[in-house]
Amino acid sequence: MPELDHVGIAVPSLADALAQWRPLLGGPDPTPEEVPSNRVRVVFLTVGGTHIELLEPSGPDSPVARFLVSRGPGVHHIAFHVPSVERALQEVAGRGGELVDRTARPGARGRRVGFARPSAFGGVLVEFVEGP
Amino acid sequence: MPELDHVGIAVPSLADALAQWRPLLGGPDPTPEEVPSNRVRVVFLTVGGTHIELLEPSGPDSPVARFLVSRGPGVHHIAFHVPSVERALQEVAGRGGELVDRTARPGARGRRVGFARPSAFGGVLVEFVEGP
Repeated sequence: MPELDHVGIAVPSLADALAQWRPLLGGPDPTPEEVPSNRVRVVFLTVGGTHIELLEPSGPDSPVARFLVSRGPGVHHIAFHVPSVERALQEVAGRGGELVDRTARPGARGRRVGFARPSAFGGVLVEFVEGP
Repeated sequence: MPELDHVGIAVPSLADALAQWRPLLGGPDPTPEEVPSNRVRVVFLTVGGTHIELLEPSGPDSPVARFLVSRGPGVHHIAFHVPSVERALQEVAGRGGELVDRTARPGARGRRVGFARPSAFGGVLVEFVEGP
């Protein structure tokens, strides 16, 4: 069974978001990471066995920039840790769920990732993350 | 430090949502619980050390019914497990964050819960859940 790897939250500014989240979550000052494949800058905050990922668009053409315009700041996706991204995507497709990705692509933290379409999980954008 | 207790997802129909989520998450067939204080019917699906909560409105006056009309199905809130709901709410208020609740109220699974306003966490509705 998969585990919840992280909850991804779209924010206009990492600095402003960290000022709201770090008093609750504590932990060391995180270092932002650029993720060119998704045109975002992210930080991961550890919460027990899972994480909160804050995503700031790295340009106006970023999908997260478009999300911020259309939906406003808030939860952007939830990500599950799976043994194989391809197998998880195939299982979603096998029950008629629509996919963003057919194969894995490079994500944050050096991981292989892939996304289903929100329609596959009742409006929730789901990411699969393969472990190192 | 808090742990992530669950991710709450607003759905029009628990049955339809379970048909999408159970192939991914597995586990036993969950029994829905009525939560009169929030006018919702919920199920919890275990994911590693945390949970996915599916929330179906129990009437058109439910806050989740209004959420479904205005935002559509999707992530409704994220909930953190804390030692004291009141202390967690006070800490949010202490840094200028707005609250829905000043004190705890009865939530699902017999727990004491309390909500901050989405503005306190960059657009994310945050719930605090006190352990049994």
